[in-house]
Amino acid sequence: MTETLKPGATIGILGGGQLGRMLSVAASRLGFRCHIFEPGAEPSAGQVAWKVTTAPYEDEAALTAFAESVDVVTYEFENIPTAALDLIERLRPIHPNRRALAISQDRLQEKAFLNGIGLATAPWAAVEDMASLEAALATIGTPSILKTTRLGYDGKGQARIKAPEDAPAALAAMAGAPAVLEGFVEFSCEISVIAARGLDGSVSCFDPGENVHRNGILHTTTVPARVSPALRSDAVLIAAKILNALDYVGVLGVELFVTPKGLLVNEIAPRVHNSGHWTQAGCTVDQFEQHIRALAGWPLGDGSRYADVEMLNLIGDDVAQVPALAKEPRTQIHLYGKAEAKPGRKMGHVNRVL
Amino acid sequence: MTETLKPGATIGILGGGQLGRMLSVAASRLGFRCHIFEPGAEPSAGQVAWKVTTAPYEDEAALTAFAESVDVVTYEFENIPTAALDLIERLRPIHPNRRALAISQDRLQEKAFLNGIGLATAPWAAVEDMASLEAALATIGTPSILKTTRLGYDGKGQARIKAPEDAPAALAAMAGAPAVLEGFVEFSCEISVIAARGLDGSVSCFDPGENVHRNGILHTTTVPARVSPALRSDAVLIAAKILNALDYVGVLGVELFVTPKGLLVNEIAPRVHNSGHWTQAGCTVDQFEQHIRALAGWPLGDGSRYADVEMLNLIGDDVAQVPALAKEPRTQIHLYGKAEAKPGRKMGHVNRVL
Repeated sequence: MTETLKPGATIGILGGGQLGRMLSVAASRLGFRCHIFEPGAEPSAGQVAWKVTTAPYEDEAALTAFAESVDVVTYEFENIPTAALDLIERLRPIHPNRRALAISQDRLQEKAFLNGIGLATAPWAAVEDMASLEAALATIGTPSILKTTRLGYDGKGQARIKAPEDAPAALAAMAGAPAVLEGFVEFSCEISVIAARGLDGSVSCFDPGENVHRNGILHTTTVPARVSPALRSDAVLIAAKILNALDYVGVLGVELFVTPKGLLVNEIAPRVHNSGHWTQAGCTVDQFEQHIRALAGWPLGDGSRYADVEMLNLIGDDVAQVPALAKEPRTQIHLYGKAEAKPGRKMGHVNRVL
Repeated sequence: MTETLKPGATIGILGGGQLGRMLSVAASRLGFRCHIFEPGAEPSAGQVAWKVTTAPYEDEAALTAFAESVDVVTYEFENIPTAALDLIERLRPIHPNRRALAISQDRLQEKAFLNGIGLATAPWAAVEDMASLEAALATIGTPSILKTTRLGYDGKGQARIKAPEDAPAALAAMAGAPAVLEGFVEFSCEISVIAARGLDGSVSCFDPGENVHRNGILHTTTVPARVSPALRSDAVLIAAKILNALDYVGVLGVELFVTPKGLLVNEIAPRVHNSGHWTQAGCTVDQFEQHIRALAGWPLGDGSRYADVEMLNLIGDDVAQVPALAKEPRTQIHLYGKAEAKPGRKMGHVNRVL
């Protein structure tokens, strides 16, 4: 077990993107230093971190030196090679734990886990070939969506099946990777709960936010979500159930569909989450600090909301709006220090205090 | 003139303490990178900065390389050697400007400047020796306070004169340095205004905060200050007058005494200020980002306050309270990453949302 980290301790972060960047800033508020491990050059997080190691996840010497330089390790994305995690875990604790990571890396495992603890999801079936896809379509029907079980996020590795004749093209789009067919769900909106569990097992959830996606990428999150108090309670209870079932330490993002029959879990992310960025403007302790507090063995902070907020993502060329956004009242800008604004690339976000 | 800086530009900061640290974090939100110049080893700001140069202010090669690596230079404390500033200014713009810095480095110049633009201060007189001290006491009277004209802050370089017989000891405490005698002022409280002026001359002030000192060091700042709306307006007008008179770019801290006859200016600081830390919890754009926006040529941000806040400094051993503070609701912790908790050393602060 990790002991409580004291100010001056060092936190290792696998991945140097914007989530690592904002985690490093949050850690600094508690007196911690961060060491970023990132294969890519000039990582966003490295601009506000104590140390950066630039090396591939296959470089065992670099991983060893990294792990030995820190007190605890966390990560900002799910798709870290297993061998790298094995090596690090022999040297330092990793939070959230390997089980949470394994489950969220694989849509099949994730759905089986969620259903296994009694939580509802969209109907789903494993797909490996045309025969299993046809069988799945026979029970789930169309419209439905075929997704690779691994490495998919922000709409990548997905193909819609509007009618049975779309099946071959959808299967081809999986490029031979194992997949899962998900039935379409009639939902009025998507909400997400950013939930934290401490080393002592205590749980704290931020208010559910309401998400709007564009082109498969999160566009806005607005708090409070326009759902009933009963549904808000349900959402929080679902998140807490997942955290406890996984003996989880850190922040977890839970995306939920609001349907006429109640909430369905869409997916979980074992990390700080884009739909939790609003907490930077609406809470005394934001999701990034909450994550750091959890893995440091500190008491979870007060995540109660004291302002209504709309978070707007700046994707690709959206970043050209920054000069105009800088003039807007009640608007907090967060840029990620990325040089090139490629299409679909998350360049920053703004939090508008409503 | 500085042009508007685009995200990806680099800001140089002279001084690596907590103000530089929080400036670097604020700059990162706007996509800027920071390069810290600091003579001391392992500066607080270096833990969240892109680059750190560790060198004395007399190292011309280091100063040159530093200046050439950045787009604009600012500072987090007043007492930077003039030769270093001369060297840097030949290579890059410095904000706030040299005149603001020179005036705030010298209490005599400061008071003469303030009175010169029609602002009231406590009665004062220059003191160089026993004769001038006696003459000053004859007009200003006791109780009064003798202060070195330069290098004084947080109660250092000051001696109280309760009665004329304290004069020789007070003068001895100045150790031969030029000094100023200030008359004691009957004031009901001290407030401060954190004011910003952009490169385009626009001015924006945060709500005045009410300051309480202990042992000559700021203890708490509470917003809103308990003063009348008329006095709040006066405070803001005074700050704006100073900014415009100095053709100032950046954030300025103005400490004011609230007296039965109105506001007196106590002192000004040409930088972000301890009494403005509350803005991190109460405003969409805090004083650190406001300073960065100003020197980057961006529009000033919305500094309107959306929460009541009490800022509490953690001085020396106060930092031992952190485990207890971490459990408190509506409490935001900011530690500075300093290893050793010496008496009088600012180790961190907390912002309590009221």
